[in-house]
Amino acid sequence: MDAKLMECVPNFSEGRDLEKIDRIVAPFRGKPKVKLLDYQRDEDHNRLVVTVIGEPDALKICLLDAVAQAISLIDMRAHRGQHPRMGAVDVVPFVPIRNMSMAEAVDFSKQVGKELADRFSLPVFLYEASAANPARSNLADIRKGEFEKMPEKLTMDAWKPDFGPVAVHPTAGVTAVGARNPLVAFNVFLTTQDIAIARKIAKAVRHKDGGLRFCKAMGVAVEARRQVQVSMNMTDFSQTPLYRVLELIRAEAKRFGVTVSGSEIVGLVPMAALTNCAAYYLGLEHFSLAQVMETHLI
Amino acid sequence: MDAKLMECVPNFSEGRDLEKIDRIVAPFRGKPKVKLLDYQRDEDHNRLVVTVIGEPDALKICLLDAVAQAISLIDMRAHRGQHPRMGAVDVVPFVPIRNMSMAEAVDFSKQVGKELADRFSLPVFLYEASAANPARSNLADIRKGEFEKMPEKLTMDAWKPDFGPVAVHPTAGVTAVGARNPLVAFNVFLTTQDIAIARKIAKAVRHKDGGLRFCKAMGVAVEARRQVQVSMNMTDFSQTPLYRVLELIRAEAKRFGVTVSGSEIVGLVPMAALTNCAAYYLGLEHFSLAQVMETHLI
Repeated sequence: MDAKLMECVPNFSEGRDLEKIDRIVAPFRGKPKVKLLDYQRDEDHNRLVVTVIGEPDALKICLLDAVAQAISLIDMRAHRGQHPRMGAVDVVPFVPIRNMSMAEAVDFSKQVGKELADRFSLPVFLYEASAANPARSNLADIRKGEFEKMPEKLTMDAWKPDFGPVAVHPTAGVTAVGARNPLVAFNVFLTTQDIAIARKIAKAVRHKDGGLRFCKAMGVAVEARRQVQVSMNMTDFSQTPLYRVLELIRAEAKRFGVTVSGSEIVGLVPMAALTNCAAYYLGLEHFSLAQVMETHLI
Repeated sequence: MDAKLMECVPNFSEGRDLEKIDRIVAPFRGKPKVKLLDYQRDEDHNRLVVTVIGEPDALKICLLDAVAQAISLIDMRAHRGQHPRMGAVDVVPFVPIRNMSMAEAVDFSKQVGKELADRFSLPVFLYEASAANPARSNLADIRKGEFEKMPEKLTMDAWKPDFGPVAVHPTAGVTAVGARNPLVAFNVFLTTQDIAIARKIAKAVRHKDGGLRFCKAMGVAVEARRQVQVSMNMTDFSQTPLYRVLELIRAEAKRFGVTVSGSEIVGLVPMAALTNCAAYYLGLEHFSLAQVMETHLI
């Protein structure tokens, strides 16, 4: 009952070849103390996102096997896709889920990063909570230049990898490994087709431009619905809850004569991200997660 | 992963003697495939409510042991308390939690009812979803007259027990057993001390008087807060969700110039009762419980 549990969401640079995808995902199937929750491939992005949960050591064994597959199957020199990427195993985020602190998850991510570097001669950057300094905490900064510019980037002192050779793996590029909070992909739809409005509201609510601390946001057109959306990554829902950003979007939308027509959560969401919204809107006093029956069944 | 799971919430007529309470609760502790989630005794009610969850057959073994203890320790002839009661083991509700239909829970409750009757010479009534006819579905109807009037009640054709002797157990009285939906105890506080307002609103929202189908409600004074509350049992949150009754109370309160100041959930609540409120207030489209990470960990 009190085993440590983490989530791991490795991103691989293969979203088209189903046979290759199957071989990369296979190591996560039917293993003790590991559960494959989801995997989604995107053809346009040419990218595979695996969501798996389990005890840390068991997760590591599966992950190393999957990485071995990915490195043997993916040649980044021939990789084309819309999503920015720098390696065959582009990024390996770890999320502490249960009986595990962020500090423990950081330690674990460093172990895994070192092992990936040693075993596969892969340059590894530590990012997010595992980053050695703030310049490396944001994955976008590490990935800037993508696979094609990495050979040049790695020669700079500021971009010496945390583990592994100071040279790009010829076919597998570079990998980022790190511990982070669970991330919730939360999109809010607006009753307009005007992308400028979605962009202005996204700017108002996101951290970068003066908004909520754990909110990344952009305006996106949703043509099939003839609407726009504020598309967000909530990077710490315990400090920036979903209801807060929704109510802020509602308030900002008013000045444009626009309203919120609905929302969606893409992929998985931790229970607490929703129960804290329920507690807010119901006005629940003294609510505790221990009151949720399922908490006792995990 | 796919074992059947039920909750059982037996109510015993002993809320004062800690040693007796310990002996009644003990059979639920440290057993395989059973988890004691909670037990609460109430001195005024002189009553003990145990909340336990587990696989049906394992639950039954613990329950039979606890019933044996209760029957040997409780003498209803000497029992006094504010809560209506008819037996030492007053009521044994079973709630299907996972991989189990209500029909299966009903079957199981009948097995348990028969075993309790045979083993302890206890008259047993089946209630709620297990009731043989509508006149027996409501526990309050079965319990009417309480322990003291049961000998007379059992002589009536309409109140022949479903199992066991047609005679009250001399010290343990009568027991009700049945399967039901999970029940959420939900209280809404109002910004007034006027109990008449809470009573009027309770009447407006409860099923009995024309309100929401799966809502039982009464007005209660909460003297320590100088407020009143609408105190509710939501008997099927999937059909009558918490947000709906809250919004209805808010609307009814307006005519009295009163507002909702907050709410509380007493005891345990199934995750889905809260996530469906989050989905309503956030306006989530296409939300599914399978998106909640914890769903995959149970």
